[in-house]
Amino acid sequence: MANTDMDEPTGDRDFVASLEKGLAVIEAFDASRPRLTLTDVAKLTGITRAAARRYLRTLTKLNYADFDGRYFSLSPRILRLGYAYLSSTSLSLRLQPFLEKISQETGESSSAAVLDGDDIVYIARSATRRIMSIGLGVGSRLPAYCTSLGRAILAYQTPAEIEAYLERVKLEPKTPKTLTQKSDLRAALEAARQQGYAMVSEELEFGLQSIAVPLIQKNDKITIALNISAQAARVSAQEMEERFLPTLREASEALRYTF
Amino acid sequence: MANTDMDEPTGDRDFVASLEKGLAVIEAFDASRPRLTLTDVAKLTGITRAAARRYLRTLTKLNYADFDGRYFSLSPRILRLGYAYLSSTSLSLRLQPFLEKISQETGESSSAAVLDGDDIVYIARSATRRIMSIGLGVGSRLPAYCTSLGRAILAYQTPAEIEAYLERVKLEPKTPKTLTQKSDLRAALEAARQQGYAMVSEELEFGLQSIAVPLIQKNDKITIALNISAQAARVSAQEMEERFLPTLREASEALRYTF
Repeated sequence: MANTDMDEPTGDRDFVASLEKGLAVIEAFDASRPRLTLTDVAKLTGITRAAARRYLRTLTKLNYADFDGRYFSLSPRILRLGYAYLSSTSLSLRLQPFLEKISQETGESSSAAVLDGDDIVYIARSATRRIMSIGLGVGSRLPAYCTSLGRAILAYQTPAEIEAYLERVKLEPKTPKTLTQKSDLRAALEAARQQGYAMVSEELEFGLQSIAVPLIQKNDKITIALNISAQAARVSAQEMEERFLPTLREASEALRYTF
Repeated sequence: MANTDMDEPTGDRDFVASLEKGLAVIEAFDASRPRLTLTDVAKLTGITRAAARRYLRTLTKLNYADFDGRYFSLSPRILRLGYAYLSSTSLSLRLQPFLEKISQETGESSSAAVLDGDDIVYIARSATRRIMSIGLGVGSRLPAYCTSLGRAILAYQTPAEIEAYLERVKLEPKTPKTLTQKSDLRAALEAARQQGYAMVSEELEFGLQSIAVPLIQKNDKITIALNISAQAARVSAQEMEERFLPTLREASEALRYTF
C-alpha cells in the first residue's frame, strides 16, 4: 500500500522545522499585535533575526503578508489557510442552517464550537443581538472550562483525558462565579455527562448564561457542541432547560453521525 | 535602524521554499477534497511524495492536521492561522456592529468583504434570513466581477490595475445576466466609480440583488466594501438605491480611515 510507512514514528529528520517556524511567525500576529517589525517577530517567536527576515520575506512574496517599509502585517490571503479547514470539513456551512433555525425558534443567539487543545473555537454562529461585551466571530477562541460549549465537549472525553486536562489547566476566575476548584469542575463535567447537556451561568461574563449539548460524530467521537446564549436577567435557568434544551437536542439528533 | 535592509529586493537565497510548499499542502484541502492521501497531496501540489510526506508529518505533529492511517485531514488548529489575520486587523470584530445595525435598519442581510487577488473574501456578515442557495460564511470566496462587493472595490483601483485585471480575468456566466464582455464590465466599473456604489442584479444567482459601497481606508486605499443583499422579486432596484444606499453610506462614512 502506498503509505503504510506513515505509521512509523516521525523521526526528527522528517520534521520540517522551517514550516513550524513559518507558521509560528503567522501566529505571532494577533489583535494586540497587528503590525510587527522584524525585531518584534524575532522576539515573539524566539527565532533569529536573520531567520525571521527570511520567513517574513517569503510570506510577503507569496502575498500572505504586507510590508510598508517598517511594519509587517498579514494580508487577506491568510484566510485561505483557515478557510481550507472550514470548507474542507464543510462544518460551518452545514451547521449554519441549524443554528439559524434554533435562533428563529428561540429568539436567542446560537453557536457551534470545536475543541482545539484546551480552547473552544467558534466555527458557526447565528446572533440575534449583541449580548456579550466581547464580540465573538467564527475563529474566536475561549477557554473550555468556563463555557457551556467547552464543558459539553470535555464531559464526553475519556476519564484519562479529563484527568490530564484537569491536571494541566489553570482555572482563572473570569467572574466571581467561575469554578476555579478542579474538584468542582470535575463534578460539573460529571453532571453534564449524566444530564447530556452543560449549563454555565455567569462564569465567563456577568449577565451571560448559556446551555450546550454535544454533537455525536462518526465513531461516537465528540469534539463539537451547539449552544444557546441568553441574558441571565431575562431568561431563567429553568426556562433554558424547558424551552431551549429540546430545540438544541432536536438539532443535535438531526446532526448525529454527520461529521 | 533595525530593518532598513528589508527594502532590498528579495533574493532567492532569502526565500524559504519549504514554507511555500507547506502552505500549498494546507491549501490543497478544500470542500471537494476534505481527506487526502499522501499521494493525493503530492499530485495536487506538484511536490514529490517524499517531500509531501515530510510536510504532512510536520503538520500532523504540530496538530494542524490529523492522520487516520491512510487519510490526512486538517484540524481546528488551522483556524489559528486565518484567525491571526482577522484578529490582527480587528476587521471582523469592528465591522460586525455596523453590519448588524444595517440589518436592523433595513431588514436585509449585510456583508463585508476584502479583495484577495481576483476574488472577494467575506470577512463579516449579518444575515437576517437565508436568501441565497449558496451558504456564505466568513472566509467564503466569490469571483469579484459578478458581485456588488467585488465591483465596488475594483472600481476604485488604478486604471492600470483595472486593465490588468480585465486582461487576466475569465468572465464566466453564472446566470444569463452575468456581464461576460470585458467592455461591459469596464463600463460597469466606471459607472460604479462615478456613482460611488455598485449594484448587481442576478448576475451571481437568480433572484439575488445587491448593492455595495467601498470603504475608504488609510492612505485612501480601497480593498474593503460593504453591501446589502435582497431578493430581487421583493425589493426593486429603485428601493435599493433610495432606502438601502443611505444606510450603507452612513456606515461607510463612519468607518472612513478606520482601517
